[in-house]
Amino acid sequence: MAQKRVVIAGMGFGGLRAAKELAGSGVELTLVDRHNYHLFQPLLYQVATAGLEQEAIAYPLRALTRKWDQATFVMAEIVSINLSGRTVVTDGGELPYDYLVIAAGSRTNFFGMESVQQNSFDLKSLAQAEVLRNHILIMFERASRERDSTIRSALLTFVIVGGGPTGVEFAGALRELIVYVLAKDYPSIATEETRIVLVEAADSLLTALPEKLRLYAAEKLRNMGVEIQLQAKVVGASSEAVEFSDGSRIASHTLLWSAGVAASKLAGTLTGVQFGSSGRVVVQPDLTLAEYPDVFVIGDMACCQHEGGALPMMAPVAIQQGVHAARAIKASLRGETLPAFRYFDKGAMATIGKSSAVATAKGFSFSGYLAWLAWLLLHLYYLIGFRNRAVVMMSWTYAYWFQDRQIRLITTNRRRSSQFQEKHIDQRVA
Amino acid sequence: MAQKRVVIAGMGFGGLRAAKELAGSGVELTLVDRHNYHLFQPLLYQVATAGLEQEAIAYPLRALTRKWDQATFVMAEIVSINLSGRTVVTDGGELPYDYLVIAAGSRTNFFGMESVQQNSFDLKSLAQAEVLRNHILIMFERASRERDSTIRSALLTFVIVGGGPTGVEFAGALRELIVYVLAKDYPSIATEETRIVLVEAADSLLTALPEKLRLYAAEKLRNMGVEIQLQAKVVGASSEAVEFSDGSRIASHTLLWSAGVAASKLAGTLTGVQFGSSGRVVVQPDLTLAEYPDVFVIGDMACCQHEGGALPMMAPVAIQQGVHAARAIKASLRGETLPAFRYFDKGAMATIGKSSAVATAKGFSFSGYLAWLAWLLLHLYYLIGFRNRAVVMMSWTYAYWFQDRQIRLITTNRRRSSQFQEKHIDQRVA
Repeated sequence: MAQKRVVIAGMGFGGLRAAKELAGSGVELTLVDRHNYHLFQPLLYQVATAGLEQEAIAYPLRALTRKWDQATFVMAEIVSINLSGRTVVTDGGELPYDYLVIAAGSRTNFFGMESVQQNSFDLKSLAQAEVLRNHILIMFERASRERDSTIRSALLTFVIVGGGPTGVEFAGALRELIVYVLAKDYPSIATEETRIVLVEAADSLLTALPEKLRLYAAEKLRNMGVEIQLQAKVVGASSEAVEFSDGSRIASHTLLWSAGVAASKLAGTLTGVQFGSSGRVVVQPDLTLAEYPDVFVIGDMACCQHEGGALPMMAPVAIQQGVHAARAIKASLRGETLPAFRYFDKGAMATIGKSSAVATAKGFSFSGYLAWLAWLLLHLYYLIGFRNRAVVMMSWTYAYWFQDRQIRLITTNRRRSSQFQEKHIDQRVA
Repeated sequence: MAQKRVVIAGMGFGGLRAAKELAGSGVELTLVDRHNYHLFQPLLYQVATAGLEQEAIAYPLRALTRKWDQATFVMAEIVSINLSGRTVVTDGGELPYDYLVIAAGSRTNFFGMESVQQNSFDLKSLAQAEVLRNHILIMFERASRERDSTIRSALLTFVIVGGGPTGVEFAGALRELIVYVLAKDYPSIATEETRIVLVEAADSLLTALPEKLRLYAAEKLRNMGVEIQLQAKVVGASSEAVEFSDGSRIASHTLLWSAGVAASKLAGTLTGVQFGSSGRVVVQPDLTLAEYPDVFVIGDMACCQHEGGALPMMAPVAIQQGVHAARAIKASLRGETLPAFRYFDKGAMATIGKSSAVATAKGFSFSGYLAWLAWLLLHLYYLIGFRNRAVVMMSWTYAYWFQDRQIRLITTNRRRSSQFQEKHIDQRVA
């Protein structure tokens, strides 16, 4: 019997777990990603706030494939998927498959607001995180030389849209960067001159968490000095202001958009499939496509009904679905069928600042120091690679003891930063 | 008495040492640099060969000024220096001074060969090191998919021009990256297919070292698998080949140019001064300008006669001159005069590979393991910042034990790398 070819398209949390589960199982495994590394997205906000170097949260994929028999990594952009011809079409050629796991993740959803897309930062890639870090520091450099108080105030106002974990964690980390580090670096700038505004369209932050934790997180952020605007809707942006649906505006040069995600554009190239909310691909209870039982869609790209609703777009779902898809393929090779995918809700968490986080697990709610410690340990545990864990642990220990962040470097030519951002937006849109 | 204003233009080795020496001495100190960090240039080649993250060899300058009284950091590009008007003209305004230390360093010297400048990499900035690292990895990615053996060979050929410490250290580190790491990452590429050619116009490598060490270094590199071409002169380059004066060419997509440096372009803006070799500014024995006894020029920018010749453009010279300039300013404030600058030759060193280096000190020559250990310790000692030392030590230990380099990430979109390179060349030329 010829060996079966399994292609995994996308090496985020879902694709990576599927690959680990299939490695060494006798199939011919091909992993495809546009980057040559797996990115630990939950810590991107720390790269953007000068807490971690980008290298610490990325793991080279070839370091995995070289350990595995019959596993190949292909660094390529996936152009489309030819379901009837059973090939993945990349910019470097076509990859035939017997089984396919589509795990291309999500992109930021700007809900069609072009002015926001053009004038905001988002946090989906390493390059974007570094661009944002440079930009924040450049705002302080410019403000330190600016005498006009109106311009100065706009330079020192940071608007974050989206009260989910990314928005909350970024707001807290940015506030700590300013209070502990930048306030000392820039003696001519008073902390009171800086402003962080966290904007959320719903009536509370962290809507996935129980009310008690939502209130704790909001109170904690407010005590730290973060302004929270609930039930506020951003409708547009320029490079110097953010506009709201009630006609008000905030003068600011920095808008981080973390208000929503949509399935990767790759989803749109699939023909003969059904789409759910956020452009996600509707999957069968076993995560396959209705017409193509050998094609699995997992993670942020999949719209998977579970206990009356679609599962959320988050890492634990992708990881569990990756395991399921891999096991289903192995079962199929043995002529067996697995029962439908069942999601096991392990809980959710978000860190707010030093010694402060919120978490739920098995119906219990935690907040404060213990939740923060649990957050640290879980993130270290899920980070891949001994060196990455060591660097991150060292950075966290250093930051904790010295209240300092040494990575506050502007690594691009400052006069080129706007160009840089344009380019990175191009890239995202392309 | 009004406080004296001292401006230090450039925060490389010389400027930094002058600043440290003047900090807290009662002068009003202004430090200027186009970057917001001091760069430890001797380890740039390790960033380019995936051994260190860029953040590990840079230290934020505001972390220094915030500890010092009456010290200000200005992040700005210096446009020119108005010697008669006693101001430093930057793109962010003018800075008046009573004393000035010019320490703007050097740039790569392409000796007027435009085709080389357009088609080569150089190693003077963090951005360049990261661009080169990405490029090397992209060459392996492309080669792994390439079937045409001629193209494949050109992709896997790396030409380094200049047999000084940078060329030697980069050649050794690149060879180790290929043999220990990339050979395993890319099973479809045989190590024998890769080629590293180190080109030097003189008749030996490391001409600053005694003959015994030069021969040791060359033999060691050859044993590692690096080709050495002596008395060979590059006269041109395209994106796919390097051309020699004898009409021969090497098909290669990667040319690292480390064959020479010239004084920063800032030197050319000085009027009424004398220029020595490599566009350097001729200084008096006390490092001042003949007509301007309150203006010091130090480091790579200075042409300083010493024991019958001009001092070389290297870090130890800059460091000692930085100390001298600072002490001379302090003496001048007390109405005293220092004796002329005297250079104390502490020796020179270069590392070749794991457990192998060459060094001279006080007339003695060392090679092998001990020289390598001395190299490691000295570089750690001169690196600034506790965190940087810890990260570098950890990376070196990790690389030593596991023969691995985890930072082999392609951090730019691979299809944009050529654009990236263009941009970085623009920036360099600008």
